[in-house]
Amino acid sequence: LGTKVGSKKMTENGVSSRAKVLTIDTMNPTVKKVEYAVRGPIVQRAMELEKELSEGMKKPFAEVIKANIGDAHAMGQQPITFFRQVLALCSYPELLNDSTFPEDAKSRARRILQSCGGNSMGSYSASQGIDSVRHDVARYIKRRDDGVPCDPDNIYLTTGASDGIVTMLKLLVCGEGATRTGIMISIPQYPLYSAALAELGAVQINYYLNEQKCWSLDISELQRSLDEARQHCNPRALCIINPGNPTGQVQSRQCIEDVIRFAAKERLFLMADEVYQDNVYAEGCQFHSFKKVLFEMGPEYSNTVELVSFHSTSKCYMGECGFRGGYMEIINLDSEVKAQLTKLVSVRLCPPVPGQALMDLVVNPPQPGEPSHEKFIKERTTTLCALAEKAKLTEQVLNTVQGISCNPVQGAMYSFPCITIPEKAIKEATKPDMFYCMKLLEETGICLVPGSGFGQRDGTYHFRMTILPPKDKLKILLTKVKEFHQKFTQQYS
Amino acid sequence: LGTKVGSKKMTENGVSSRAKVLTIDTMNPTVKKVEYAVRGPIVQRAMELEKELSEGMKKPFAEVIKANIGDAHAMGQQPITFFRQVLALCSYPELLNDSTFPEDAKSRARRILQSCGGNSMGSYSASQGIDSVRHDVARYIKRRDDGVPCDPDNIYLTTGASDGIVTMLKLLVCGEGATRTGIMISIPQYPLYSAALAELGAVQINYYLNEQKCWSLDISELQRSLDEARQHCNPRALCIINPGNPTGQVQSRQCIEDVIRFAAKERLFLMADEVYQDNVYAEGCQFHSFKKVLFEMGPEYSNTVELVSFHSTSKCYMGECGFRGGYMEIINLDSEVKAQLTKLVSVRLCPPVPGQALMDLVVNPPQPGEPSHEKFIKERTTTLCALAEKAKLTEQVLNTVQGISCNPVQGAMYSFPCITIPEKAIKEATKPDMFYCMKLLEETGICLVPGSGFGQRDGTYHFRMTILPPKDKLKILLTKVKEFHQKFTQQYS
Repeated sequence: LGTKVGSKKMTENGVSSRAKVLTIDTMNPTVKKVEYAVRGPIVQRAMELEKELSEGMKKPFAEVIKANIGDAHAMGQQPITFFRQVLALCSYPELLNDSTFPEDAKSRARRILQSCGGNSMGSYSASQGIDSVRHDVARYIKRRDDGVPCDPDNIYLTTGASDGIVTMLKLLVCGEGATRTGIMISIPQYPLYSAALAELGAVQINYYLNEQKCWSLDISELQRSLDEARQHCNPRALCIINPGNPTGQVQSRQCIEDVIRFAAKERLFLMADEVYQDNVYAEGCQFHSFKKVLFEMGPEYSNTVELVSFHSTSKCYMGECGFRGGYMEIINLDSEVKAQLTKLVSVRLCPPVPGQALMDLVVNPPQPGEPSHEKFIKERTTTLCALAEKAKLTEQVLNTVQGISCNPVQGAMYSFPCITIPEKAIKEATKPDMFYCMKLLEETGICLVPGSGFGQRDGTYHFRMTILPPKDKLKILLTKVKEFHQKFTQQYS
Repeated sequence: LGTKVGSKKMTENGVSSRAKVLTIDTMNPTVKKVEYAVRGPIVQRAMELEKELSEGMKKPFAEVIKANIGDAHAMGQQPITFFRQVLALCSYPELLNDSTFPEDAKSRARRILQSCGGNSMGSYSASQGIDSVRHDVARYIKRRDDGVPCDPDNIYLTTGASDGIVTMLKLLVCGEGATRTGIMISIPQYPLYSAALAELGAVQINYYLNEQKCWSLDISELQRSLDEARQHCNPRALCIINPGNPTGQVQSRQCIEDVIRFAAKERLFLMADEVYQDNVYAEGCQFHSFKKVLFEMGPEYSNTVELVSFHSTSKCYMGECGFRGGYMEIINLDSEVKAQLTKLVSVRLCPPVPGQALMDLVVNPPQPGEPSHEKFIKERTTTLCALAEKAKLTEQVLNTVQGISCNPVQGAMYSFPCITIPEKAIKEATKPDMFYCMKLLEETGICLVPGSGFGQRDGTYHFRMTILPPKDKLKILLTKVKEFHQKFTQQYS
């Protein structure tokens, strides 16, 4: 096994092998604490299984169905034609002479290119994002929020929403020990939050959504969570995901108002993750932006409460995850902090310009009377209706299974049902829901994420599944989950 | 000015104004320490001046010439036609039926799309990057390095090179006080490094390049710098930029060998920033990759020295900064650390897919016999020859100015001349080179970055200018700098 000579080991063939500079014991300890279940061990195993299938290995299933991640195009959702036409025109402006492209796509492409240095998407943009895109975003927000004003100077384009969320959290983190920054996040949560907090060394403060009341948010639970946290850290921000991921609930206007009042009273910075703002399916549900509600509550709130809202090109009817487009709007951010934010984002130069172009199209789609309008509306409606139908189907089928209980998927792209795991299985496994999902994968080829990756009340078990597979595949998936659950329950009872 | 009531202030109109949660005093202190001169105050002023000019304000110049940032397309450099054709095809695959596109562009686009989920660039890729692209990168590296093997598993696609550099630095940072991680960087350096180290709270260890010897790297200076640093921190990595930014030198094979031997002896992790690997102009100079030299030094080194090398789509003949494409290759990284790296990058889901596609084209351009080959070679040659000519021109003209002394621009895209600033000006200003550059901007409209943004020996002053403006504009720029310098010297003598 070699003799150690100083920092060198002599191996048998005489070649010295130095001890590594960077090992698991000497690496950044905060990185080690990071976890991200959406791409965790289940997903890695799913990829192995796919490879084994392609190599002809025999499995109890013909294909792996991945319902682990909100990756719409990978599940067959089609891109919006207009968006892609404009992106092609921007990529290769020679096409502006091509008569088969509609005029509105061309004029949109020309406008984007004119905002790029040297008329090329290959130039860096301003670090905050292309000026004209930020203006379009501001106009979109004002329209969405029934006229509440929006300042383009408060818009920062980002590399997907994740980038913006991490950047804002980074600004907030300071202090040590009992004064260390704490950030309130919902449980269940989207694991970007827990991962970012681990990496930044901030304290994660859990507040639990009310599963019995359709994953709604109770102010009394916020208060409990905050009061406890104040005994060991300095809570500074409250993160909300609406519509919810992984829980699929859509918050009522009243709830949002209560949250804002709570944040004001307790002096918390509000972070509103609103990337599913167009994904609302349930009757009687409607998306209300935190910004709009804040401004409707009058100047006592709208002049004081610090709020940042995130949006993205990755979800809604677009599903353009690969382009990594997004924006954030900051409200009431201290001007000196804003200057620091601008400086911080400048180090990474700029968000990807194709993603910025795409964000521009999302906030400024074809208008009535323009040649692409009809097709755009048709494509968008088709996608959103299909999602609404699949949300309903998922809820219905899962609720027919004894031992699975599923809240309505009011919005977003996920169902997060509660599953009853028999005592025997709980005793057998360290993480019973991981055990369940791994078994499901091995036996059926269905890839879901265990609830423990998002957080859940102790003693309860869940999984997250996306509603994105095409309807026929989703039906197969749901049937297989049903059969598996029955078999699993029998086996461990 | 309002009366304080608890955390509220009452303003004159009776509306309460709460103290902000996030202020300059309560924000993350490490973020405040971050500086990034390439987009600092000079550049902000340049943007104001542009706006003022466009509003008809009278200035002593007709336009602002920006030579502050390596933004090739913004300076008029043309994109490679083939690259943009493939990107258009990937964005809007309908175009695969368009007979005006060359067949090799189509087959390349088909191959990229086949590697994307649902055949769409809108899908997330694997976090490490698209599999086929990583394989193409590995083949490119093997070709570049005369057959030295390259494992696609060691390739990580990144969001520009900056993303990879920050990620690797993040892994390396640990310890507190005298055991805090120190990272050796050249002075002058590219300020991403100092900014990232400030943000991560790592110790910046400066080693000085030898301006008298054409900005070469002396091992004795590395040793001095390391020995001093060991007294107050734990030096763990050595960063090299070759070809140099901002200094434009190209390292000799011998120098690289010496650096590797030094890193091995001193147990330092090597980080080689090689984004300018195709930007070599000076006769007798040649790019040698650290990877290749490492492997040519035999197993004692190639089996032990930990190395990461960075590349990007933003520089060389491509200049596609806006797409934020890049890759890194890791050599001898501990396997557990590698697993942590993969986990860490998965939190951000994936690098932008259009940037990955572009990286694929860079490492796998049209081959002899393919329809686009001739045009590709012509375009690449034109761009690189123009850069070589401008590198020469810059050196020549600047060296005719008394009080400016300029090393040859052997490679990269920058000149970093030493400027003599008269004593009177030094006394008048806190940062004499900032003072000089600001005056230059106000009087001539030329935007350069002061040397202090990159680091320089105490008592010396420099500026960085890119050689990117079109030749006629570069000539104007150089003439104006010359005249300004003479006037400035006179004024303060």
